[in-house]
Amino acid sequence: MLSKKIYIEVAPPRLEDNRADYERLLAALPDHRVTGVPLDLLRRLPGILRAAGWRVTVTLGRTNGGWMLQAVEPGDSAGRQFGLAVDAGTTTISASVVDLVAGRVLASAVGENAQAGEGEDILTRLHAAGEPGGVSRLRTVLMNSVNRVAGEAANAAGVAAQEITAVAVGANTTMTHFLLGADPAWICREPYIPAVNSPGVQSAGSMGLAVNPEAVVYCIPGVGSYFGGDAVAGILVSGLHRQEEVSLFVDIGTNGEMVVGNREWLVAAAGAAGPAFENGVVRQGMRAGPGAVERVWIDPRTHRAAYTVMGGGKPRGLCGSAVVDVLAGMLLSGIIDRGGHFCDGREAFVVVPGSEAEYGEDVVITRQDIKNFLRTKGAVNAAVETLLSAVGINTGEIRNFYAAGAFGEHLDVEAAVTLGLYPDLPRERIRLLGNTSLEGARRALLSEDKRRELEEIRRRVTYLELNVSTEFMARFTGSRFFPHTDISLYPSVAKKLRAAGLL
Amino acid sequence: MLSKKIYIEVAPPRLEDNRADYERLLAALPDHRVTGVPLDLLRRLPGILRAAGWRVTVTLGRTNGGWMLQAVEPGDSAGRQFGLAVDAGTTTISASVVDLVAGRVLASAVGENAQAGEGEDILTRLHAAGEPGGVSRLRTVLMNSVNRVAGEAANAAGVAAQEITAVAVGANTTMTHFLLGADPAWICREPYIPAVNSPGVQSAGSMGLAVNPEAVVYCIPGVGSYFGGDAVAGILVSGLHRQEEVSLFVDIGTNGEMVVGNREWLVAAAGAAGPAFENGVVRQGMRAGPGAVERVWIDPRTHRAAYTVMGGGKPRGLCGSAVVDVLAGMLLSGIIDRGGHFCDGREAFVVVPGSEAEYGEDVVITRQDIKNFLRTKGAVNAAVETLLSAVGINTGEIRNFYAAGAFGEHLDVEAAVTLGLYPDLPRERIRLLGNTSLEGARRALLSEDKRRELEEIRRRVTYLELNVSTEFMARFTGSRFFPHTDISLYPSVAKKLRAAGLL
Repeated sequence: MLSKKIYIEVAPPRLEDNRADYERLLAALPDHRVTGVPLDLLRRLPGILRAAGWRVTVTLGRTNGGWMLQAVEPGDSAGRQFGLAVDAGTTTISASVVDLVAGRVLASAVGENAQAGEGEDILTRLHAAGEPGGVSRLRTVLMNSVNRVAGEAANAAGVAAQEITAVAVGANTTMTHFLLGADPAWICREPYIPAVNSPGVQSAGSMGLAVNPEAVVYCIPGVGSYFGGDAVAGILVSGLHRQEEVSLFVDIGTNGEMVVGNREWLVAAAGAAGPAFENGVVRQGMRAGPGAVERVWIDPRTHRAAYTVMGGGKPRGLCGSAVVDVLAGMLLSGIIDRGGHFCDGREAFVVVPGSEAEYGEDVVITRQDIKNFLRTKGAVNAAVETLLSAVGINTGEIRNFYAAGAFGEHLDVEAAVTLGLYPDLPRERIRLLGNTSLEGARRALLSEDKRRELEEIRRRVTYLELNVSTEFMARFTGSRFFPHTDISLYPSVAKKLRAAGLL
Repeated sequence: MLSKKIYIEVAPPRLEDNRADYERLLAALPDHRVTGVPLDLLRRLPGILRAAGWRVTVTLGRTNGGWMLQAVEPGDSAGRQFGLAVDAGTTTISASVVDLVAGRVLASAVGENAQAGEGEDILTRLHAAGEPGGVSRLRTVLMNSVNRVAGEAANAAGVAAQEITAVAVGANTTMTHFLLGADPAWICREPYIPAVNSPGVQSAGSMGLAVNPEAVVYCIPGVGSYFGGDAVAGILVSGLHRQEEVSLFVDIGTNGEMVVGNREWLVAAAGAAGPAFENGVVRQGMRAGPGAVERVWIDPRTHRAAYTVMGGGKPRGLCGSAVVDVLAGMLLSGIIDRGGHFCDGREAFVVVPGSEAEYGEDVVITRQDIKNFLRTKGAVNAAVETLLSAVGINTGEIRNFYAAGAFGEHLDVEAAVTLGLYPDLPRERIRLLGNTSLEGARRALLSEDKRRELEEIRRRVTYLELNVSTEFMARFTGSRFFPHTDISLYPSVAKKLRAAGLL
């Protein structure tokens, strides 16, 4: 564990055993190399030990070289040990409070990264960071967002901020820089160099995280400027790095990261995905939550849409899974063609009529929404194809396709394959993993082995720079079709289109 | 070294070598296990490296588990590396600025410990620390004194406070507690337990030391409440812990610490010495410095005193060596008897007539001064004898007698033996070591081996508690004679007294 509590009964001092309090305490912790103690705790130690009658619970935090003493409390409180797992995304922040004894998530919360007010994509924020005081301002905005979401999760879990003594963070390299306050100026300039990939452990107090100030904060190590700790966490959760056969992992949020490989080799690529699937890809898109249309079915004869709403109230907008359902339904019903154009020349498709909607306005998918979606999907396709081509693997040779992030949390697999978001593999080989950055952070909280494995993954990954790849640009331009320019890559979709008389 | 600078040329980044700045820097330091970096330095690292054209001087500080990055500066400044050695005494604070490259002291300064305003002895200060806010107040007073003396030494050395990246401190256990701000409440209560004996390394910034805030501060480890790091340093400097024959080390400041032993065993004792030899033992006493009477000779026939003054001006008072000269001269001239009484019934002896003195007043030694001196000397004698008796060693079996502190810096060996301050050993076996706490701190700054040796000494010492020894009290009561109740222990003094017709 990144932080752990141990109940100990310290031998009370006698004339014949007059070791000092601190050495006496350490002697009761024989299996731990304690390399540090906060001065403030050392100062109060004699009073704590005596008031507790020498029966105390010690909290130890993992440092880069051993353990540090984080707290000494009277009595046995070893049953209450809490950590925080954080996924600090460009658009969305997720946090889970984890019971470190049971290893399970007690409560989670999700919220916006308020940095979005400075610009939706990474490049805009890197630019803003270059202004005087920019890094510090963006750090504060991000930390406030993280603290708000973490506070919500802690409230829901019934855990006090002070009780959280370990934090593990999955984030892309730019967000990790903002969390640390490290200068990200060279991330977006050739040759694309981060200040740090593997920051080790820092204290929550020094970072401004609103948990126990002595909490150890572990940032999952990244590979480089565009393949961060969140993606390394994804590989860990997928397990593809331990398998004999070659698999593909794709995590699409505001950016897209992907990796292909097996237990012998790992090659990764990344790129800005275009508008986020999470909530930016369509005008009336929204994050999954109350009021979001979640599932949509289009009647191929009437072209009417049936839908379900999260929380059961009136629909407010479309979450990612609904957009995928609508677009796939429109394609298979002949409402749009494979290029994304409306076959009857209209400008929008009504998913929810205004009479049924929360705000009284039609909830629609417009021509522009479809173009945005195609651009994002095209970027992902192009990146995956460039990556596979670079390692000489065909899609069909992929054992498992792992989808993470907004790209893979609640999507209907059939619809996603129909649109070409997912490859046309036997369905049992398509694995939806949810938020692997958050799950990787949870595992890092609980296990030193997992932290070692993350570091090992980071070292094993070979990163393919797509920013300088002409092949990527060529594929990107040619990939804005449903499911793909080359329909032979999607036999199951071709079969459906043919059955509907559309191919 | 506790802190060291290394000039490195970091490989500039390329597309084919896009490691992050921090990892790139660490790769250029292959022989050092770097376990930490201050967040503030990590934040600025990309700018520093690029402005310096990837040629930088790295400062590393020893931590409890490895090295921490303290600073990164442009260009090659490895020739300028500075440390601070401090002896934080109950009465006097000494500091030396040390050139860590050459290993030598550049400048030193001495000043008062302003805590004396709260009480001259340790017990009064421990009592004051028990009041609300007491520890914090006493810590601030001590730290201000240390900072003033350190600042003077740095000024004299031409070194900026920011350039000092390592500090080693020799201090008794109570002073170490005050420096750390650790609660010393249980030091003076049976069974006499310190908060900490071996505090390892803390940062200067957290302690409030006015040097580089990232400087590593090493407190020489102590054995227990009354045998601190200053005395452990004394053993190191004496070298008795490595010798085959048995030797005795005595350090008398405001307190007295002593140790007897050899390379196989070490037994120590300590006790409050009574009024400090440094400046408190006589009414007109003062610390060695300009205006202090340093050497005194008494004509056995005329009973007039001749003297030398430090700095050559008019005399202001008597430093410790003058007091010892005067008392020994008075004894051998028959002005006082072995019990310290004036033979002719007078109340004081004039060392410097008012007409020659700076303040126009006679500089005298009074009956009360002699009583104070005898009490202090008696306490030291009693402690040494109890210690030797406990280990079954006679004074004559002592190979070397090492005298440290005010007790041993400038004293005339013959006079000190005459008064019974030093044992009556062949004179070449009496070694005056000066301020061994400061010298031990200097060595700790320069060598990891010495720090390991200090830790080893600390572990090897068996401490004999005199506070609960009835033997000590009996000896103390019987030991207020010059040179000793049992004159047979001092044959050379007996011979002199006999020659003068006084025995």
